[in-house]
Amino acid sequence: MRLSRYFLPVLKETPAEAQIVSHRLMLRAGLIRQEAAGIYAWLPLGIRVLNKIKGIVHEEMNRAGAIEILMPTLQSAELWRESGRYDDYGKEMLRIKDRHDRDLLYGPTNEEMVTEIFRAYVRSYKQLPLNMYHTQWKFRDEVRPRFGVMRGREFLMKDAYSFDIDAAAARRAYNRMYVAYLRTFARMGLKSIPMRAETGPIGGDLSHEFIVLAETGESQVYCHKDLLDMPIPGEDTDFYGDLESIVRARTELYAATEDVHDAARFEREVPAEKRLSARGIEVGQVFYFGTKYSAPMKAVVTGPDGKEVPVEMGSYGIGVSRLVGAIIEACHDDAGIIWPESVAPFRVALINLKSGDAETDQACDALYSQLNAAGIEVLYDDTDERPGAKFATADLIGIPYQLVVGPRGLSAGKVEIKVRAGGARQEMSPDAAVKYLVQGI
Amino acid sequence: MRLSRYFLPVLKETPAEAQIVSHRLMLRAGLIRQEAAGIYAWLPLGIRVLNKIKGIVHEEMNRAGAIEILMPTLQSAELWRESGRYDDYGKEMLRIKDRHDRDLLYGPTNEEMVTEIFRAYVRSYKQLPLNMYHTQWKFRDEVRPRFGVMRGREFLMKDAYSFDIDAAAARRAYNRMYVAYLRTFARMGLKSIPMRAETGPIGGDLSHEFIVLAETGESQVYCHKDLLDMPIPGEDTDFYGDLESIVRARTELYAATEDVHDAARFEREVPAEKRLSARGIEVGQVFYFGTKYSAPMKAVVTGPDGKEVPVEMGSYGIGVSRLVGAIIEACHDDAGIIWPESVAPFRVALINLKSGDAETDQACDALYSQLNAAGIEVLYDDTDERPGAKFATADLIGIPYQLVVGPRGLSAGKVEIKVRAGGARQEMSPDAAVKYLVQGI
Repeated sequence: MRLSRYFLPVLKETPAEAQIVSHRLMLRAGLIRQEAAGIYAWLPLGIRVLNKIKGIVHEEMNRAGAIEILMPTLQSAELWRESGRYDDYGKEMLRIKDRHDRDLLYGPTNEEMVTEIFRAYVRSYKQLPLNMYHTQWKFRDEVRPRFGVMRGREFLMKDAYSFDIDAAAARRAYNRMYVAYLRTFARMGLKSIPMRAETGPIGGDLSHEFIVLAETGESQVYCHKDLLDMPIPGEDTDFYGDLESIVRARTELYAATEDVHDAARFEREVPAEKRLSARGIEVGQVFYFGTKYSAPMKAVVTGPDGKEVPVEMGSYGIGVSRLVGAIIEACHDDAGIIWPESVAPFRVALINLKSGDAETDQACDALYSQLNAAGIEVLYDDTDERPGAKFATADLIGIPYQLVVGPRGLSAGKVEIKVRAGGARQEMSPDAAVKYLVQGI
Repeated sequence: MRLSRYFLPVLKETPAEAQIVSHRLMLRAGLIRQEAAGIYAWLPLGIRVLNKIKGIVHEEMNRAGAIEILMPTLQSAELWRESGRYDDYGKEMLRIKDRHDRDLLYGPTNEEMVTEIFRAYVRSYKQLPLNMYHTQWKFRDEVRPRFGVMRGREFLMKDAYSFDIDAAAARRAYNRMYVAYLRTFARMGLKSIPMRAETGPIGGDLSHEFIVLAETGESQVYCHKDLLDMPIPGEDTDFYGDLESIVRARTELYAATEDVHDAARFEREVPAEKRLSARGIEVGQVFYFGTKYSAPMKAVVTGPDGKEVPVEMGSYGIGVSRLVGAIIEACHDDAGIIWPESVAPFRVALINLKSGDAETDQACDALYSQLNAAGIEVLYDDTDERPGAKFATADLIGIPYQLVVGPRGLSAGKVEIKVRAGGARQEMSPDAAVKYLVQGI
C-alpha cells in the first residue's frame, strides 16, 4: 500500500481524554476514532490489526474442534426471560423497543440464543460433543466507558459454547478451550496466565480468566512465578487426546485474581521467592456452568440409556477488540507501538528518504514490487515528508521492519533494515533485504 | 470436515413460513435459523458462504483502490440531526436510548458517520481521491420482514464512500465502483445488470442499481437484451485509467427499474426483439450525491486555488447477506442449491457409501487426507446414513463436486465424481479423482 493513497491520520498531539498508553497510542497512530462514548470506528490501520487477531482466534478455535456460526447482534427479550436473566442483568443491558413495541436487546453475550439453537436441532448424545463459536459485536452499557477499546460499550467478542452429555465430557470440552486459549494468546506475542476467577453474571462452578500482565491492568493478580514460563502446547496438539496433564500443570500452581484471592493460601502454597503480585488485563475467560441454561430452557438430549438429560454447557470468551489495546499495553516504547509480527497491520514499512529523486524512487518501486510479489504486506511511505517525520511515523505505528532507502546508501549499493523491536539496524544490498524480509531470517 | 463432527441441521420438511425458494432452501439446508422477525443466526454452512461472499467483495474493493475501515453498528443521533435525516428517516430507523437517556440509533447506513470521520482528518485536495468501505451489520425496522435474508431487519452490508475535489473526479470514483461491482457479481456466478434507479433516502442525482434477474425478483425491470452478454472487465483493469468507455457501453443501452421506467423511451430506443422485461433482485446500488452531506456537515477541503469547498461524495452498497439468498434464487433446482464454486461452503462432498466397511473407510480417509493436504475444502459424509439420504443431503446443500466412494466401485479401482451443476457423472481411479478436484479440470 502506498501511503500517498492510504488513509493514515496520525496525530502529533497526545489526546487529552486518553488516560492509558494503549488508548493514547491507538488515537495517535490513527487506529480508532471515538464516535460516541465507548463506541469506536476502526480506521484502516486498526481494522487490519483487528482482522489479524480475529484470524488467529478463529484458526485456534477450528484447530480445537469448535465450529463457526454467527448469531445476530439483536436478540429477543423472550429468550432472556426463559433463562431468568432479563430482569437480573441490570442497566448494562441495552434494551430496545422496535416499531411494533416488541422488546429486543443488544446482546451482551449469547448463552440463551445458542441454547435455543441447540435445542431446536439436537436430540441425541450421539451428536455430541459440540462446540459452536462466533465473533460478533456485543454491547454493554457501562456507566463510565473509558480506556478506549479496553472498556468500550460496543466491543467485538469471540464467544464459544460447548455442549456435552455429562460433567466429565464437559470438563474435556473446557480443557480443549483452555489449551486453545494458551495457544491463541501466545501466537499474538502475549504471555497469558490462566487464573481462577469469579463466574459473575455467566454463573457456574468453574472459571478461569486469562490474564496478561501490564502495569495498567484493571485488577491486582497473584500467582506462582513459574506460570510465566510454562511451555505452550504445539500445533500438533491432539485436542481429542488427554489434555488434563497440560491443564493440571498450571492449575496446581496458585493463580488468582483479586476477587477470589486467598492471601493465607497464597503464602502457604507459594514459596516467598516465587510469589508474584502484579496488575493484569483480562483477555479471555472460560466458564463451566453445567445446566444453568439448559435446565430452564429445556435443552435436553437422550443419553445412551434412553433417558433425557439437560445438556452440560460451558462458554468461552475472548475480547477481540480489547486485545488490540492489551497487546499495545504489553508491546510499546516511548516512540510508539511495537506490533508482534503475527498481528502487525503491515510487515514492512518501506521508507523513501528522498521521494522525487529518480534513482531512489526507482529503487523503492522495485523493492515494493518484489515484496508485494512475495506476498509481504508493505506500507510504502512515498510521501513528501521529511525523513525525520517518516521515521517518527514508522516508529509510532509500530510496523515490525523498516526498510530505509536513500540516495547515500544506494550509491554504495545499500539499503538499511531497522527492526522496530529493539531497534537493531543492518545495512545490506536491496536483494539481500528482500530475502531477509521474505524469509524472516 | 467430517460430518460426524459437524453441525449440519438439514430439515426434511419444507418450512411453512418460507414463501420463496431461497428462504425455503436456506432453512432446509441448515444455513440460517430465525431468532426474531427478520433477525437470523447463521449456522455453520451459512457463515461459510457469507464469509466467501464478503471475501470476494473485499478483494474487489481493494483492487479498485477502496480502503477498509469498520464503523460501529450504533450511532449517535446527533450526527443524523446535523444532516437533517434524523427526523426524515421514519420508523425504519431503530431508535435507542442508553442508560443516560442519550439518543442512539442502530445504523441503517453510514453517510453521516463517514463524513464525520473525513472532516476530522482531511483538509486538502492533495489527500484525495479517497474511498473508504466497511462491511458491518445494519438494521432497518421493516414493517413486515419476509423472504428470509432477502428482506431481513438485521442485515450485513458492504458500504463504500468516495470523497473527491470536484464533480469530474467524483464521476471517476463512481465509475471505479461501477466496474468493481460488475467484477464482484460476475465472480459470484451472477449476471448483474446496472440499471438507472431512484436515489431514495440516500439522495443525489445519479444512481444505478445492480440487478440480478430471477422470477421471484422484488421489482419489474426493463432493459436492452445486449446488457446480458457484455464482457466483464478483467483482473488487470486499471482502475485509475479511463473507465468511462466500459461504463458508457452499458449506460447508453436502456435499463431501468420500474420506479424510473419510461415506457415510451423504452419502445423508442430498444428494437422490439431486444426488449427484455423481467423480475429482478437488487444486489447493489451506487449513488453520486455531491455535497448533500458534506455541505450541511461542513466536510470541506482546500482546493488547488486555496479556497475551501465541500467535498463531492458518493456511496456504494452491496447487500452481503442478501446475496446469499439472491445467489440461491439464481442457482438451484428441484433437489436443492447449486453453489457457484467461488462461494460454495465446501468444494467437495466426499460420500462414503458404506461407513464401517474397512476398505471403503480406508479409501475415503485417504482421499480426505489428500484433498485436505492440497487445500481443498471437503465435507466428508462419514455418518451411518443410507446412501440415498447422503445423496439427497449432498444435492440439497449444493456442494459443487460429489466424490462417491463405495465397495462395488473400489473393487474395480474406481470412484465416481458427480458435478452438482448439470449432474454429469464420471468414474475414475481415486488418484485421478484427486487430480481432477485439485486442478479443476
